Amino acid sequence: MPETNKTALVISAHAADFVWRCGGAIALHAAKGYDVTVLCLSFGERGESAKLWKQEGMTLDKVKSERRKEAEQAAEALGVHDLVCLDLGDYPLELSREDKNRVVEVIRKVQPAFMLSHSQYDPYNTDHMYATQVALECRMIAQAWGHNPGEKVLGAPQLYLFEPHQTEQMGWKPDTFLDITPVWEKKRAAIECMAGQEHLWEYYTRVAINRANHFKRNSGGQASGRDCKYAEGFQSIFPRTVDEL
Amino acid sequence: MPETNKTALVISAHAADFVWRCGGAIALHAAKGYDVTVLCLSFGERGESAKLWKQEGMTLDKVKSERRKEAEQAAEALGVHDLVCLDLGDYPLELSREDKNRVVEVIRKVQPAFMLSHSQYDPYNTDHMYATQVALECRMIAQAWGHNPGEKVLGAPQLYLFEPHQTEQMGWKPDTFLDITPVWEKKRAAIECMAGQEHLWEYYTRVAINRANHFKRNSGGQASGRDCKYAEGFQSIFPRTVDEL
Amino acid sequence: MPETNKTALVISAHAADFVWRCGGAIALHAAKGYDVTVLCLSFGERGESAKLWKQEGMTLDKVKSERRKEAEQAAEALGVHDLVCLDLGDYPLELSREDKNRVVEVIRKVQPAFMLSHSQYDPYNTDHMYATQVALECRMIAQAWGHNPGEKVLGAPQLYLFEPHQTEQMGWKPDTFLDITPVWEKKRAAIECMAGQEHLWEYYTRVAINRANHFKRNSGGQASGRDCKYAEGFQSIFPRTVDEL
Amino acid sequence: MPETNKTALVISAHAADFVWRCGGAIALHAAKGYDVTVLCLSFGERGESAKLWKQEGMTLDKVKSERRKEAEQAAEALGVHDLVCLDLGDYPLELSREDKNRVVEVIRKVQPAFMLSHSQYDPYNTDHMYATQVALECRMIAQAWGHNPGEKVLGAPQLYLFEPHQTEQMGWKPDTFLDITPVWEKKRAAIECMAGQEHLWEYYTRVAINRANHFKRNSGGQASGRDCKYAEGFQSIFPRTVDEL
Amino acid sequence: MPETNKTALVISAHAADFVWRCGGAIALHAAKGYDVTVLCLSFGERGESAKLWKQEGMTLDKVKSERRKEAEQAAEALGVHDLVCLDLGDYPLELSREDKNRVVEVIRKVQPAFMLSHSQYDPYNTDHMYATQVALECRMIAQAWGHNPGEKVLGAPQLYLFEPHQTEQMGWKPDTFLDITPVWEKKRAAIECMAGQEHLWEYYTRVAINRANHFKRNSGGQASGRDCKYAEGFQSIFPRTVDEL
Amino acid sequence: MPETNKTALVISAHAADFVWRCGGAIALHAAKGYDVTVLCLSFGERGESAKLWKQEGMTLDKVKSERRKEAEQAAEALGVHDLVCLDLGDYPLELSREDKNRVVEVIRKVQPAFMLSHSQYDPYNTDHMYATQVALECRMIAQAWGHNPGEKVLGAPQLYLFEPHQTEQMGWKPDTFLDITPVWEKKRAAIECMAGQEHLWEYYTRVAINRANHFKRNSGGQASGRDCKYAEGFQSIFPRTVDEL
Repeated sequence: MPETNKTALVISAHAADFVWRCGGAIALHAAKGYDVTVLCLSFGERGESAKLWKQEGMTLDKVKSERRKEAEQAAEALGVHDLVCLDLGDYPLELSREDKNRVVEVIRKVQPAFMLSHSQYDPYNTDHMYATQVALECRMIAQAWGHNPGEKVLGAPQLYLFEPHQTEQMGWKPDTFLDITPVWEKKRAAIECMAGQEHLWEYYTRVAINRANHFKRNSGGQASGRDCKYAEGFQSIFPRTVDEL
Repeated sequence: MPETNKTALVISAHAADFVWRCGGAIALHAAKGYDVTVLCLSFGERGESAKLWKQEGMTLDKVKSERRKEAEQAAEALGVHDLVCLDLGDYPLELSREDKNRVVEVIRKVQPAFMLSHSQYDPYNTDHMYATQVALECRMIAQAWGHNPGEKVLGAPQLYLFEPHQTEQMGWKPDTFLDITPVWEKKRAAIECMAGQEHLWEYYTRVAINRANHFKRNSGGQASGRDCKYAEGFQSIFPRTVDEL
Repeated sequence: MPETNKTALVISAHAADFVWRCGGAIALHAAKGYDVTVLCLSFGERGESAKLWKQEGMTLDKVKSERRKEAEQAAEALGVHDLVCLDLGDYPLELSREDKNRVVEVIRKVQPAFMLSHSQYDPYNTDHMYATQVALECRMIAQAWGHNPGEKVLGAPQLYLFEPHQTEQMGWKPDTFLDITPVWEKKRAAIECMAGQEHLWEYYTRVAINRANHFKRNSGGQASGRDCKYAEGFQSIFPRTVDEL
Repeated sequence: MPETNKTALVISAHAADFVWRCGGAIALHAAKGYDVTVLCLSFGERGESAKLWKQEGMTLDKVKSERRKEAEQAAEALGVHDLVCLDLGDYPLELSREDKNRVVEVIRKVQPAFMLSHSQYDPYNTDHMYATQVALECRMIAQAWGHNPGEKVLGAPQLYLFEPHQTEQMGWKPDTFLDITPVWEKKRAAIECMAGQEHLWEYYTRVAINRANHFKRNSGGQASGRDCKYAEGFQSIFPRTVDEL
Repeated sequence: MPETNKTALVISAHAADFVWRCGGAIALHAAKGYDVTVLCLSFGERGESAKLWKQEGMTLDKVKSERRKEAEQAAEALGVHDLVCLDLGDYPLELSREDKNRVVEVIRKVQPAFMLSHSQYDPYNTDHMYATQVALECRMIAQAWGHNPGEKVLGAPQLYLFEPHQTEQMGWKPDTFLDITPVWEKKRAAIECMAGQEHLWEYYTRVAINRANHFKRNSGGQASGRDCKYAEGFQSIFPRTVDEL
Repeated sequence: MPETNKTALVISAHAADFVWRCGGAIALHAAKGYDVTVLCLSFGERGESAKLWKQEGMTLDKVKSERRKEAEQAAEALGVHDLVCLDLGDYPLELSREDKNRVVEVIRKVQPAFMLSHSQYDPYNTDHMYATQVALECRMIAQAWGHNPGEKVLGAPQLYLFEPHQTEQMGWKPDTFLDITPVWEKKRAAIECMAGQEHLWEYYTRVAINRANHFKRNSGGQASGRDCKYAEGFQSIFPRTVDEL
């Protein structure tokens, strides 16, 4: 019964962010049977589409349309269950109370086992840190029994912060490395959907390979480290609850 | 075959620390079949035995002997596999190169799946932070192929920092809550072996009950949080490596 | 003459926060002759009233009314001089420029010797950290000679951050412990007014007892520590100015 | 050709901030041939003009007019190329989307080689930290190819944070000391334009002299430190890119 | 009866540190009837006596003798009760177990109501941070009932960190400002005993005047701030315990 | 005259560290005419030579000899002026007072314009952080006029921290990116001298390419960023002193 699938939710400031930063986590969990929803707050149409804007006669609508197409192709390559594009505008991204309610609606509908979003600090891109602030605020609203009473309230899903560009400048410190070797080809395929940012294809491939080195160092080191060819790193906001260390 | 048991290692600055701070983790993992070794670097004979010193005619040897007895009783109550007391002196605790080699020897013999020690900062008790520094240094030496070549080198076990007294002053932030409800009676029994610190029995019982509240908040909150009556918190030094978030 | 009483001001995001977090400070200072004003920005009607919402036929107004009643009873138990409920809505709490002006008006009217509010970070509850941001912003406006010229401007009262739930996750570090033993019965009575959160009565009683242990450790330790049975902890935002260390 | 001049941009929350905090940097770069633009978001009319408000019959317009006059005189003393006063109001400072667009317009017109603004934290003055947040957000928008397509987009200028009052409380840590000895007389002249804050004239003179001591300590110490009589300190947000260490 | 005087203890890495950094606190408390003991771990003979070493025919003993003389004169000017010079060597300062026992002996003898030492980080001068580490370790040993049983154990005195040079680089943040106006002349006289560091006389005078500005800002601001002409700042390691906020 | 060459000094805990972490900086400055001295405190013979120890009949001397050979070859490939191997032992690295004096001697002899060493925190490898502590301590001693009076004392060279493995775990944040494109072939050649760690050759090549991306982002971004193919990142301990921002 599909309604019993486990679920996950990615909150991405711009259309392409989910690909570079957690495409592996998406594909891996999709392959494990999770329904993964990706919520793009904007298309990154103004700020992350330089290549398109350099073309003659470009308009905001055309850029959005291109970016949406890329996002849809990438989502398909990754096995995304549902791609939700709220088209709220970027640079700067700003959400009204109603916009936030739409985000809450998605969170409640998905009832994610875990959520993914940006780092909490980013002086290069204030949209990113704003998206995380929104993710935390809307997670809280979704937990409120008095918000649209009668709806199923949210539990307490982990919020993982995916890897930003220039990690050290963002104060981002990964505490979890995920082996994405089994789905690497899917992530690479999704990456290649990002025609406008071809200079980053190899960049994020290198990131994935070097993160696999970190995975191995932490899974046992030279003595007994499990092999891993591609990995992604995540920082957890909340503590874990376990029955065994 | 017992030699295939999973193992864990606690490095405790003074004899009683392991009881208050991770007695539940010890008992729980012992109950799950782990061989848990507890390494007490000192007995806490000078600095943590005020009640004994207030007795007439007390000597250092008598204090150590009392403290050892208490530690042994507590270890038995918790199901500790091996209690190793190095008797290196306290207030201040100081390890020579040879002392560190003895610690390395224990680490290599145990080959722990995970290690437990103190917080990294403690302005009230410099022995505590020194013990953690020793734990990290000796973990590193135990991983070195050139240290006593031929011995089995250590993998990359997690080092969990157990809960200090006055957590906020120590900059300690738990990222893992462990449900110790099934073994609470054992932890309480071990606590009651600490005759000299009776004022802390109820203190740490309250800590365990309040940590259970934190466990529930993070395992699902009011909507779906799993029940838990007693818990312990831990901070991880190293990132985790996982196949699923 | 009552107009010469010393005063204090609590800024609480939701109606119940002031009880758990600084009920002792309120009762103690009231007993010392301070006029303590409590400003509740919202009732916590949507996000902190789960028990009420689980009742048949509940409405937002009924929840608010219940919560107001509880807050009033608790305020009375604590000896609050004035309970001001702004009813600005919660989850999320959001203040317009006019709302902030109302807060400034209260601050100026009270002219507090010190203020109390939430921790500066709270990923579980963004209303809490927003309230502190509001407290700092409105404190600043209240100090401005050009804001409603002619009114008495504010001095430089300390802003104490009271104890959040799960302190370590909030990055909250207490630098001041207040002995609330003389008024504990009042705090407990106020706590028992919170019918909807009965699971927290014992929780915060345990917190108060354990904080008393911290009080004693810091007031002299085992050698000469003053006794204390119940305490509350606070973090100061601003430096103190003294004539003796 | 003047259009090839190097440029710099100061974003100042209130009219006087640029004088105390980076008047030396302005005068020095002006003397080196930079066109330095100063953007005052407000006049500080409500919150930083206590002396004026204490005068009989003062009005908001008169205060603004006085403050503008002072700012213009100081700007002239420093050799400011362009003083832009947006008059957006203070205590609190708040920018609408349109206001931010005006800031972006200035940034793009100036195309600064580097920018200057406030510290990222200031519990005494939330306008200051808000101004820095605006500076980062508008810098990002100015870099967006899709913001007013066809305009020249911004490169990646450094954002230096100038020295706040009570530096340690703001978490501000200078990583760059600038020798302003050659233009000290200009900075002092600009400072003396601030008639309303005479108590700070000597204060910031002392700061400049003590910062010169820091300059010398870091330029070579007692062995070989270059002399310097007046200096200013700055904290960089972004990393530098160099061809030699 | 003099034996009932309140007491304080300064632990200074080098002979001159106590003058610049807490000379005001010493003189003020001496004037209030405290017996203030100053413990100089070294004379700063190798690292902080450049001017002496530039003289022809200088020897280590002569430098020490000069430095001791200066320290004695300064101590007298400040009203120090007891100046203890351990002569343990500087650059680097290193204490053996026996040296630490001598420090503990002094602490126990003095039984200070509060202690003063250096900042916890100082990349320019590792002796400074080492001295603070020693202060914390020896404070702990002095509290141990089993250290020289029978002696009076130490209570829980605050450890204040006095102001380092280049405060921001040391991560030092003052939380307490002390008005030293009544004893400023004494501090200045002590400063002038430091013949070898004349370039710092005015530097630390400026620091004291600017810290007085901070005192006023925090004691009430422009509205009601108490006047103060000279002040010193301190950072507390431990929380305070109070009966009123 | 060669004696007027500018100089630099690398302090490396183990023989290979300087290659991976700052080989580019070494080769670049050598090419610019600097005399670069590399000081290896140990050979990394016990802890960083796993591949050698897996060979039959290996001894400590053979490992050291192999490691020395590799280091010499790498140094030659990079154009190192002087390779100094102190052979102090590793895992753990420990320096006596005499060992530190030898380090000071090297520092004074070189009189470096800047120094390079490890990150200040490394829970995986305590030798690394110990080496930085030594670098700071010995830099301070080298500045002391009373250490071997008559020798030329050290000025105030910057200490750059080079890139550790798993940067985020070490709390390392680069503030300076150096373009090493002109000397990349030399760094790669030096890397290939490290026969025992072939698995890291490609790893650090990927690091250098990705750091070039960061260089470009910070040198002007998509609008005007200067090109760069290989880069290294560094964190500065001390502030810079400049005449132009």
